[in-house]
Amino acid sequence: MTYRIDCLQYANWSEKIFRQMREGGVDAVHVTIAYHENFRETVLNIEQWNRWFEQFPELIFQGRTGADIRRAKTEGRTAIFFGFQNPSPIEDDIGLVEIVHTLGARFMQLSYNNQSLLATGCYEAEDPGLTRMGREVIDEMNRVGLVVDMSHSADRSTLEAIEHSARPIAITHANPAFWAPARRNKPDDVIRALAESGGMLGFSLYPHHLKDKSDCTLQSFCEMVAQTADMVG
Amino acid sequence: MTYRIDCLQYANWSEKIFRQMREGGVDAVHVTIAYHENFRETVLNIEQWNRWFEQFPELIFQGRTGADIRRAKTEGRTAIFFGFQNPSPIEDDIGLVEIVHTLGARFMQLSYNNQSLLATGCYEAEDPGLTRMGREVIDEMNRVGLVVDMSHSADRSTLEAIEHSARPIAITHANPAFWAPARRNKPDDVIRALAESGGMLGFSLYPHHLKDKSDCTLQSFCEMVAQTADMVG
Repeated sequence: MTYRIDCLQYANWSEKIFRQMREGGVDAVHVTIAYHENFRETVLNIEQWNRWFEQFPELIFQGRTGADIRRAKTEGRTAIFFGFQNPSPIEDDIGLVEIVHTLGARFMQLSYNNQSLLATGCYEAEDPGLTRMGREVIDEMNRVGLVVDMSHSADRSTLEAIEHSARPIAITHANPAFWAPARRNKPDDVIRALAESGGMLGFSLYPHHLKDKSDCTLQSFCEMVAQTADMVG
Repeated sequence: MTYRIDCLQYANWSEKIFRQMREGGVDAVHVTIAYHENFRETVLNIEQWNRWFEQFPELIFQGRTGADIRRAKTEGRTAIFFGFQNPSPIEDDIGLVEIVHTLGARFMQLSYNNQSLLATGCYEAEDPGLTRMGREVIDEMNRVGLVVDMSHSADRSTLEAIEHSARPIAITHANPAFWAPARRNKPDDVIRALAESGGMLGFSLYPHHLKDKSDCTLQSFCEMVAQTADMVG
């Protein structure tokens, strides 16, 4: 049995898109429900998703475990997994890690381009690595089962997160820098450390992360995937 | 199999009290985690309980369903069920009903002595009954499985909640007014309507709700329980 999973998606969500996901046979999708929202704002976004789950039960439901992906395939629906692109939803309160997990969050990026309370983003000039709170929050994320995502983080912070985390981490949307040297893409040492620790890499189709941007060819993209697989697959 | 359940409890919680509950063989307890707290303050209280669940797993765990009470008895632990004495945790946002339920809330009073956005409290001079929002919130509580508790509500509001709710409601802590005519105690018509709808009444040991206050005798209390059972049991 194979599953079709979208490892990171954002959109102006609607019934139309939920139906497109069914037409495309998408069993599960990691949906961004917070970019820069604080806790209360994130809860408002979850409330909106709760309304969609209530309105369109034949199309979508909230995913919480791997078993939900198998259930989604069996039932012909799409399992929606919540994720944050930034740790802003936990504000400065480590107790919120368990709270957002209880509400269904399964992925959280430690930083989004800029410095956060936890780690450095990939656009900062300096990357001092994980902060003291960052280490504590990773421990708590490991405990409750919230996946550390370093897609938008800087390299030293990412390497330290891989090292510090007791569970494998994820880079849900980024490409190798050897193919397209954007700051959001990852150098070989990060990709190797990620793979050696059992982590996952999701490739990105965002034009800024592609070789030749929007002129990128399917051939070029697939060669990049194959080359990355040869390197660490 | 019989179970020992405390239908409403508040305390300055600590390991000592958790151990006392085990010594007393309490299988489950409905714990007040909010009196007048708003949503964020209630979440802070849940965070404190999460820490206790982590610290004392041999004594307590979070209860969410009836099966958890059976599990508590089997495992020799006490299942903790969260409840609010006021609807303040949902603020003015009906979407928070499902959110607090997901976080474990299983009981919510529609008003606490005073007028709320939903219903009237028992100390108000006037009781205009359920508000428009009150009816909508009851529907939402029925949908997600959050029990309506009218312990501190005024009589007309209580009768209307019994009538409007599609599921039985609870009066978790109050006594019959025929025995002790405190404003917090309930007249016969409320008790009869509650019983006829399948609801539950939990008797109160709070001195202000007792005949002769702190001088109340065990004999008198038990006679009151027997008389109430004769009336609606």
